[in-house]
Amino acid sequence: MASQLESAMESLIRVFHNYSCQEGDKYKLSNVELKSLLQNELGDFLGSKDPLLVEKIMNDLDKDHDGEVDFKEFVILVATLTVACNEEYCGGTPLRESTLMQWHLTP
Amino acid sequence: MASQLESAMESLIRVFHNYSCQEGDKYKLSNVELKSLLQNELGDFLGSKDPLLVEKIMNDLDKDHDGEVDFKEFVILVATLTVACNEEYCGGTPLRESTLMQWHLTP
Repeated sequence: MASQLESAMESLIRVFHNYSCQEGDKYKLSNVELKSLLQNELGDFLGSKDPLLVEKIMNDLDKDHDGEVDFKEFVILVATLTVACNEEYCGGTPLRESTLMQWHLTP
Repeated sequence: MASQLESAMESLIRVFHNYSCQEGDKYKLSNVELKSLLQNELGDFLGSKDPLLVEKIMNDLDKDHDGEVDFKEFVILVATLTVACNEEYCGGTPLRESTLMQWHLTP
């Protein structure tokens, strides 16, 4: 049986490929695929803070504006968001009440 | 209900704090805590390739040799390992047969 950490790592790979295989290069996210991933997987969190955040993230990750984001760039985004959530948690917000857990409580 | 990606991010935070709270600074991993985390959460994978790998990772992460690893350094390690697993997967190894999934098949 996989450990909790191994399962989390596998989930990152599976989520990426669930979206990257939908069109074009199956190992990279097109702008359409990235937007779909962000909205479906992180939609409540990102949308609740800034309606333009998805567009900002897309522009930030897609440095050469070729409309593609590879797995490494995706992992950097996830790592950055997770570190931010952890800092909030360490700041005194219980994990069940932190931003990470509030994503689903946003109307 | 949390998305697969959100659950994975929460798991990273939970796993880190499960170990970091055991002794000393509760927001950092001591050498003992890091070793315990690596062996329990990634033991089969790391141990099967190189018996000294745990020590190497500890030395690599703990740049200032103060015996502590923070959450950001931990996430960088996880991200690096996940990117390596993904590259193996993209190289033609089916996910269920990749290194990530083989950790538990090692004697």
